[in-house]
Amino acid sequence: MLSTTLIDKIIENALMEDMPYGDITTDNLIPEDSVSEGYIVAKEPGVIAGIEVAERVFHLLDKSIQLKLHVKDGDYVNKGDIILEIKGNTRAILKGERTALNLFQRMCGIATLTYRIKEQVRDLPVRIVDTRKTVPGLRYLDKYSVRCGGGHNHRLGLSDAVLIKDNHINASGGIKKAVEKARESIPHTMTIEVETTTMEEVQEALDAGADIIMLDNMNLEQMKQAVELINKRALVEASGNITMETVRNVALTGVDIISIGALTHSVKAMDLSLKLK
Amino acid sequence: MLSTTLIDKIIENALMEDMPYGDITTDNLIPEDSVSEGYIVAKEPGVIAGIEVAERVFHLLDKSIQLKLHVKDGDYVNKGDIILEIKGNTRAILKGERTALNLFQRMCGIATLTYRIKEQVRDLPVRIVDTRKTVPGLRYLDKYSVRCGGGHNHRLGLSDAVLIKDNHINASGGIKKAVEKARESIPHTMTIEVETTTMEEVQEALDAGADIIMLDNMNLEQMKQAVELINKRALVEASGNITMETVRNVALTGVDIISIGALTHSVKAMDLSLKLK
Amino acid sequence: MLSTTLIDKIIENALMEDMPYGDITTDNLIPEDSVSEGYIVAKEPGVIAGIEVAERVFHLLDKSIQLKLHVKDGDYVNKGDIILEIKGNTRAILKGERTALNLFQRMCGIATLTYRIKEQVRDLPVRIVDTRKTVPGLRYLDKYSVRCGGGHNHRLGLSDAVLIKDNHINASGGIKKAVEKARESIPHTMTIEVETTTMEEVQEALDAGADIIMLDNMNLEQMKQAVELINKRALVEASGNITMETVRNVALTGVDIISIGALTHSVKAMDLSLKLK
Amino acid sequence: MLSTTLIDKIIENALMEDMPYGDITTDNLIPEDSVSEGYIVAKEPGVIAGIEVAERVFHLLDKSIQLKLHVKDGDYVNKGDIILEIKGNTRAILKGERTALNLFQRMCGIATLTYRIKEQVRDLPVRIVDTRKTVPGLRYLDKYSVRCGGGHNHRLGLSDAVLIKDNHINASGGIKKAVEKARESIPHTMTIEVETTTMEEVQEALDAGADIIMLDNMNLEQMKQAVELINKRALVEASGNITMETVRNVALTGVDIISIGALTHSVKAMDLSLKLK
Amino acid sequence: MLSTTLIDKIIENALMEDMPYGDITTDNLIPEDSVSEGYIVAKEPGVIAGIEVAERVFHLLDKSIQLKLHVKDGDYVNKGDIILEIKGNTRAILKGERTALNLFQRMCGIATLTYRIKEQVRDLPVRIVDTRKTVPGLRYLDKYSVRCGGGHNHRLGLSDAVLIKDNHINASGGIKKAVEKARESIPHTMTIEVETTTMEEVQEALDAGADIIMLDNMNLEQMKQAVELINKRALVEASGNITMETVRNVALTGVDIISIGALTHSVKAMDLSLKLK
Amino acid sequence: MLSTTLIDKIIENALMEDMPYGDITTDNLIPEDSVSEGYIVAKEPGVIAGIEVAERVFHLLDKSIQLKLHVKDGDYVNKGDIILEIKGNTRAILKGERTALNLFQRMCGIATLTYRIKEQVRDLPVRIVDTRKTVPGLRYLDKYSVRCGGGHNHRLGLSDAVLIKDNHINASGGIKKAVEKARESIPHTMTIEVETTTMEEVQEALDAGADIIMLDNMNLEQMKQAVELINKRALVEASGNITMETVRNVALTGVDIISIGALTHSVKAMDLSLKLK
Repeated sequence: MLSTTLIDKIIENALMEDMPYGDITTDNLIPEDSVSEGYIVAKEPGVIAGIEVAERVFHLLDKSIQLKLHVKDGDYVNKGDIILEIKGNTRAILKGERTALNLFQRMCGIATLTYRIKEQVRDLPVRIVDTRKTVPGLRYLDKYSVRCGGGHNHRLGLSDAVLIKDNHINASGGIKKAVEKARESIPHTMTIEVETTTMEEVQEALDAGADIIMLDNMNLEQMKQAVELINKRALVEASGNITMETVRNVALTGVDIISIGALTHSVKAMDLSLKLK
Repeated sequence: MLSTTLIDKIIENALMEDMPYGDITTDNLIPEDSVSEGYIVAKEPGVIAGIEVAERVFHLLDKSIQLKLHVKDGDYVNKGDIILEIKGNTRAILKGERTALNLFQRMCGIATLTYRIKEQVRDLPVRIVDTRKTVPGLRYLDKYSVRCGGGHNHRLGLSDAVLIKDNHINASGGIKKAVEKARESIPHTMTIEVETTTMEEVQEALDAGADIIMLDNMNLEQMKQAVELINKRALVEASGNITMETVRNVALTGVDIISIGALTHSVKAMDLSLKLK
Repeated sequence: MLSTTLIDKIIENALMEDMPYGDITTDNLIPEDSVSEGYIVAKEPGVIAGIEVAERVFHLLDKSIQLKLHVKDGDYVNKGDIILEIKGNTRAILKGERTALNLFQRMCGIATLTYRIKEQVRDLPVRIVDTRKTVPGLRYLDKYSVRCGGGHNHRLGLSDAVLIKDNHINASGGIKKAVEKARESIPHTMTIEVETTTMEEVQEALDAGADIIMLDNMNLEQMKQAVELINKRALVEASGNITMETVRNVALTGVDIISIGALTHSVKAMDLSLKLK
Repeated sequence: MLSTTLIDKIIENALMEDMPYGDITTDNLIPEDSVSEGYIVAKEPGVIAGIEVAERVFHLLDKSIQLKLHVKDGDYVNKGDIILEIKGNTRAILKGERTALNLFQRMCGIATLTYRIKEQVRDLPVRIVDTRKTVPGLRYLDKYSVRCGGGHNHRLGLSDAVLIKDNHINASGGIKKAVEKARESIPHTMTIEVETTTMEEVQEALDAGADIIMLDNMNLEQMKQAVELINKRALVEASGNITMETVRNVALTGVDIISIGALTHSVKAMDLSLKLK
Repeated sequence: MLSTTLIDKIIENALMEDMPYGDITTDNLIPEDSVSEGYIVAKEPGVIAGIEVAERVFHLLDKSIQLKLHVKDGDYVNKGDIILEIKGNTRAILKGERTALNLFQRMCGIATLTYRIKEQVRDLPVRIVDTRKTVPGLRYLDKYSVRCGGGHNHRLGLSDAVLIKDNHINASGGIKKAVEKARESIPHTMTIEVETTTMEEVQEALDAGADIIMLDNMNLEQMKQAVELINKRALVEASGNITMETVRNVALTGVDIISIGALTHSVKAMDLSLKLK
Repeated sequence: MLSTTLIDKIIENALMEDMPYGDITTDNLIPEDSVSEGYIVAKEPGVIAGIEVAERVFHLLDKSIQLKLHVKDGDYVNKGDIILEIKGNTRAILKGERTALNLFQRMCGIATLTYRIKEQVRDLPVRIVDTRKTVPGLRYLDKYSVRCGGGHNHRLGLSDAVLIKDNHINASGGIKKAVEKARESIPHTMTIEVETTTMEEVQEALDAGADIIMLDNMNLEQMKQAVELINKRALVEASGNITMETVRNVALTGVDIISIGALTHSVKAMDLSLKLK
């Protein structure tokens, strides 16, 4: 599901960073033909994301390493669950271990947090989405991990959707003009979202024909009011420091989308461990 | 202090990832010659790291942008403190904003966490150090941020120091043989650390002439015993899920170094915001 | 307006390809400190696109070269019009000449063809858009040139909008299921287009809630019928070997968008020449 | 025959440009293990070039895709001819389709145009050659395609042969001095061509010992005169807006080489289509 | 033992440099399916280093080439010894020949020189080490070759060990302060070396707790004196224009390490030849 | 004279290799704003090549460093001559020192050796040329250095001239057929050289119309005979282990070109030193 072309660049970069001159411990102490077996195990419960990335790290170091995957991306695992078994050249396994885990643990961490937040609102018709607050260089993986956790993606970057903020509005002479100008210029396949902080702005965005209206840091009351005002004529997105604790109440206001930067900007790595037998 | 060659690659990669085809909002709505002034402000207290990186993001987008730095890396700032002022082409500022903040917030997050942990043990003769559990592609920045927060670095990667773990020991026929074999092969400028879990292993590592002995997941009592046993004949490093809460007691055992993976693998971004006037 | 980061990679690649070991004519015959003046002139009428790219080629070879632009992207020029004046190191000018013109002439060629086709329908409420049939490596420039000529862009690539074709429909069990499945998965900022060849498919796509319905290789009568059937409930795109000759009649059917692969896949370079005084 | 190292870079770049974040249509609608069969068919007659490039696009996406080539580079195909059969993972085929065709259609377009022009002069002892007016980034493929169509290559770039133009002549104090200076400096394996516009210049170039004399934009009468004057003492190249219509008459003047920029700067893609069964 | 990721970049770069547009001799004269057998033979005695690199050059050009290695890195071969046998596609063998030999001959040259120097002191407890005077781009291979010849590596670069020279000392206010300041800042895994030219400096370095003391361009008498003074409290490194002729006497002074820039900065390629049957 | 695009890649690669994580000595001991003055001095006589490369290393580290060049490429310097003066940020100077010298010393070493060999034959009408036996990654610099020393370049690589060896001859059915086949295919700007070992082969090559005939490992008598036989109808190149000692006698046989692999494959670095005041 992940593009090899994209992940290979990330992995090769990571391996070079970790081993600009090889692994002096392993190269000196482990015989070249030594073979080991082992497994990656979950040391805490969570949602799997990036198992292919872990796999690919080892295969880039040694094509002949055998991996047996016990789970797949999106699966929920419990503490003690085996995630994959690995067998092959010991040197390659030891050299790839940290890079594989660094990537995989972060990805599972994102998926798990997304899953936990999604749990709060699973019965409600709302999407939990990410933002552009990803780690530079890993956006492709960060966004993929959000999907593995049951979340959805917001726009991928600055090139694929319009998000009109206050500076854009001021420079354009108002929301209406900004939306019109953007609509005139962008591909017909793209949509326009407007960031609003007051009911007046919501109304203006609606009148301007925005596809999506973002309610930025509004309180619950304001959100409800905005949802009613918009009345399905545009998608409604709630945004601004929404947490595990507040997400359900936000969802109950009727918004369609809740975007949460913390899904990717403050990731707690999931505790995974590679054990050799 | 940071190498431009190294950070430029990271930043260009991040900008390409965010804008494979430009910023369709800004390019369509902000006049090409529009100029803005603004500032980056701390929305919570913390330690600054990476101000040069933020600066460089904007300069790679437009060399003529003027930045006035109010603080420098390593400084502690309070909520509301202005970190830097920026003035220049509006398009460049808006395009660089997210990339600059994504990098800068992570770096300050690492420095702040390091600082908080360091606070617990500032009166004790112990180093707080990082690990190789960094985000792939950003190790150089992650390790630098730890230093900004008052911590120290452990080895940079697999090429610059030896860390002998159980697999290496088993493959070599014991700690003594492993250390000897490594010592014979590595540059005379490099050192050897041995990971131990029992007093027997500590003794063996000591006898083998290890430069550094890591106490892996030992309890406080064991650590004290090991420190006494080693008695300054090697550096002693405590390792294994040490937290803000436990770090002081670990330090009080007399270990020289405490390594903490969470400094870089589970980073909470510091809350910073770019405001345009 | 163009991203320097993106165009620099293209230009450096082009210069390396042309001069893997320098310019043996110029390096051997032109004195190192020789300075020349010259200009780029249009040898046929057309629309300008990529003047910044031409500028950048010379600046990458010698930062001190002075360029005076007489026109800007999107301008229509006549035969004999001066496009830019150039003054600076003769060696740099001669080395950059061909690369600058190769890029600039192609870009102007695309803009000019787009402009000519747009001329046929300027009074009608229809967009002329490009496709993904661009030259590999230059899509960013090709798509930009279409905009300079008065056209619009279709999706940028496979990542930023959904276009459901027959294979996708067959694999999904019908148009309705395909659209639903896509809608469930993609970002809320993205849209779905369905390719249709019959009125039945148009109806199905409409029922499925497609944002855009492509009429693939339909005749004028069918197109009219489809436009009526759709009745503004989705955007309508005509596609399939539409030419300068047929575009007006297609537009008169009432479609919203006409996509033309030839805008970028079969480009006639605009005739430009660099003259040194 | 094509270098994998060289084409892989071009193809990977093209795939990244088309899919910075995957193919959201195919990844969401086509099952991961779906397998398809299909073929690439010629929708108009022409000469094949680049079949290996098409092949390689699919193999970079999925090594296990099977391709059966019905023709080889240089072959003339008719409308309806099957060019290759393809069988394998449906996702990979759909993702690679456009990139493969974009490269392949351009290459066949160049080969076909070259072939058509070559047809006009096949009975005459003259070479049809390309120029440096290639698409930046694709010169290796453009030049190869010319050879597939029965043409020959001119110099590859600025590093592998000397072409002395008016600016070089002026800076050197005349043709004689320019040729001498170049000859003194360049490798003994390289040759010198001089661009001339009058009989006087032709005579000077001849006296100077040029290996090749280019007749730039001369009329037929002048060309004949130059050919006689040169009398086999140097190769003679005709250049300057030579077309399908004029090429035969130019060839009949007795020149050895006819260079045509349009072979590569104004390419009409050959109409090819990938059909899945 | 060598990292494929690292050597592939070097080899691909070398192949591109040699063949920006293919091998025009081989591509035109050798049939595509021609197969050859041959071998690489030593034309003078020496020590092998880099056999994997040679192997990899051919495999990057054609995966199916078969290589049978007769020796391994570190082996001493005599004139006439077969080093490896090769069998496979003739074109690939001819294209790779020069690049493979250029790398392999340099590596064997370094190993052989190191071996010869090591021979002078094999009975003495001293290390022969390299310096940072390697060929830019090939440090990884240069340092590896020194090890194949029986030498050891000094630090890999500026990031993995401290070497305090006069400028650093002056800027820090003396050796003692410089060592302290460095010790405070660097990872606990790294060591500090101080360059000295007088007994006073040696004493200061010793007092400052330097791990390694370099005796820079001292005479034999001074070296002996320094060794006695240091008396095993630090490692002692002799440095400065030490040659095959002087190395034994230097070693007899009792120094631990002798560093020799010429091992890598003035390499005589070992004479190897690829013969096809 | 050197292409910045080409040398920047080489230099950046070298700096990264030397400083994957900065210069831990200099960054910790030299104040950020420290400024120094110094110079590069020749410690032995020789010919300068690559002064621009040295310059560029420092400018890539700090644009504001001032360099005053006392000599230029191709100049002969004596022991003790100042080559350039440098003034600027101390950190940048110390970080760049080794990389600048590694490149510059090798280049001067090549130029000096070339110059010395050229000295033996300066009164004779013969060229001293290099081969493809250059250090991988540095061919552009190696070949340039040969020219600085008064030598000339042979072909740049496999793409820019034909060199027919025994394997090519065998595969083609003789020298005549090989030359004809090559001539038919290659650009008219390129030449054909044939490697010969006997008078029969020389005659065949001559009859076949080779532009250059290489006499491979012939003795002086054979060379004279070959020169007479060829009688100016082709250029004559002597090749095969020609040294400083033998070059004059080879030249006296009347050959036009003498190629010497050792110019670049076995380089003794010229002794240069950077001194800070």
